Amino acid sequence: MVTELAVLNVIPGREAEFEAAFAQAKGLIAGAEGFRSLDLQRCLENRSRYFFRVEWERLEDHTDGFRNSPAYGEWKQLLHHFYDPFPTVEHFELVARVERS
Amino acid sequence: MVTELAVLNVIPGREAEFEAAFAQAKGLIAGAEGFRSLDLQRCLENRSRYFFRVEWERLEDHTDGFRNSPAYGEWKQLLHHFYDPFPTVEHFELVARVERS
Repeated sequence: MVTELAVLNVIPGREAEFEAAFAQAKGLIAGAEGFRSLDLQRCLENRSRYFFRVEWERLEDHTDGFRNSPAYGEWKQLLHHFYDPFPTVEHFELVARVERS
Repeated sequence: MVTELAVLNVIPGREAEFEAAFAQAKGLIAGAEGFRSLDLQRCLENRSRYFFRVEWERLEDHTDGFRNSPAYGEWKQLLHHFYDPFPTVEHFELVARVERS
């Protein structure tokens, strides 16, 4: 399992529009091969900042599969114009997890 | 529920030492009032970068409770010297979540 992570800085004033577009777009990624889960979180200290996380079965499900799919074209069209600066997307592997016992 | 998030840039070459210290330190935060879960993830593209996430019942469980506790003193002593630059910690609220159906 691999986690895709990005901090998204949305153009100030366009947050509601971005959230509405995200609600439309999320099904595009959730339908991809190897998708496990996603979440979008909004920052309390800076209301234009979001945190986006997707769990994939394998790195290639994101980098080869989703990014080369027609769904990714729709995803970009719906979302990419909201970001400034354009986000850096990176992938992570789990080192440690603790749940409340 | 509130999520605490930080990108941790560890001094290159000290990653193994940091992970060992984190294994010791994680119980300090997991024992705090309002703690729900944590995870530590390591970046595949930049091996000195980590992503740290903690779920708390309420914002104040982190900002007032944990940060004013003796456990936080031990946490800082175990971990804070590994970071360069020192991380920005922010808090987030959930906007959307999708799990594979």
